[in-house]
Amino acid sequence: MKELREAIEKFGVGLGDGIVKVDSFLNHRIDTALCRRMGEDIAAHFAGRGIDLVLTVESSGIAVAMMTAQALGNVPVVFARKSPSMNLGPDVYTAQVFSYTHQVMNTVRVNREYLPRGARVLMVDDFLANGAAMEGMRELLRQAGCEPVGAAVCVEKGFQAGGSRLRAAGVDLYSLAIVDGIDHGRIILRDD
Amino acid sequence: MKELREAIEKFGVGLGDGIVKVDSFLNHRIDTALCRRMGEDIAAHFAGRGIDLVLTVESSGIAVAMMTAQALGNVPVVFARKSPSMNLGPDVYTAQVFSYTHQVMNTVRVNREYLPRGARVLMVDDFLANGAAMEGMRELLRQAGCEPVGAAVCVEKGFQAGGSRLRAAGVDLYSLAIVDGIDHGRIILRDD
Repeated sequence: MKELREAIEKFGVGLGDGIVKVDSFLNHRIDTALCRRMGEDIAAHFAGRGIDLVLTVESSGIAVAMMTAQALGNVPVVFARKSPSMNLGPDVYTAQVFSYTHQVMNTVRVNREYLPRGARVLMVDDFLANGAAMEGMRELLRQAGCEPVGAAVCVEKGFQAGGSRLRAAGVDLYSLAIVDGIDHGRIILRDD
Repeated sequence: MKELREAIEKFGVGLGDGIVKVDSFLNHRIDTALCRRMGEDIAAHFAGRGIDLVLTVESSGIAVAMMTAQALGNVPVVFARKSPSMNLGPDVYTAQVFSYTHQVMNTVRVNREYLPRGARVLMVDDFLANGAAMEGMRELLRQAGCEPVGAAVCVEKGFQAGGSRLRAAGVDLYSLAIVDGIDHGRIILRDD
């Protein structure tokens, strides 16, 4: 997606150890107009696929998930929770997700009621690196008996294994921008 | 706000110990159309106040913050982070926020760049109970030298102290629905 690529080129910062820092517009401060257009772009890609709901994992996927859901005609968003909330109750699907950023294993969970059997689900996240969050969402959908229509991410790190693994597993993965590497602080974007 | 009140009456669940469970449409599964209209309602209330950005705390405030920012003409959203991300860097404002739900003290932090001195900021969250998250946001804005224009929440628990404390401190607090108590599982809503 051209506009996201331009934002990454203009505002993104590549750090030495493979970190793509885009928190000035994507996942700490959010450029609302860009986020909306990303949601519209994702919705256009999956148009006509009968999506019933958008699934994401808290918290930085929520913004683009909302904008995608809005552009899909206001389907609901469900976000898997990382923390065991007193309010969530025991009746949940759970999956283990390793966070490379924080170097901890998180359990993500969704109330069973909100993933109805047979629902056609689009998985959305801001970032795809090793694919741990996506694998966690796939596991939740598997337990729930939902239909994973596809996955969309704003930024895929093409030099990490998540994207290839998901595509090899047959997931229809739509990445708005793919970063192929970082060269002396410069973020190398794959051509569209 | 009539539509939110109706959703609370229809789908909300009051639990014995003062818990207002609205996760079927507000903070786990999100009713996208309702969320959008809540954002529009908040934006209408604060129209003409020159808001530069919307501040929230991850993660369940993000959805309504996005919709509010969109309705305010696509001003940016900044969400304070609870976890120390490797990507966030040391140059942050921090505040302590006690989570009554999880019974832990969280440090919330925002990169200093994203709260420019003098910016006119609307604080948004899904819930207001004891007001800890709002006090944390006020503290971040105080450190940053921003102008807190006001605060908006979807659901205020009127039987807890946060709302009265904020109003007593002169905060222009706009609550879309106020819950006055729970009576045998029934949620008692204050009249508009």
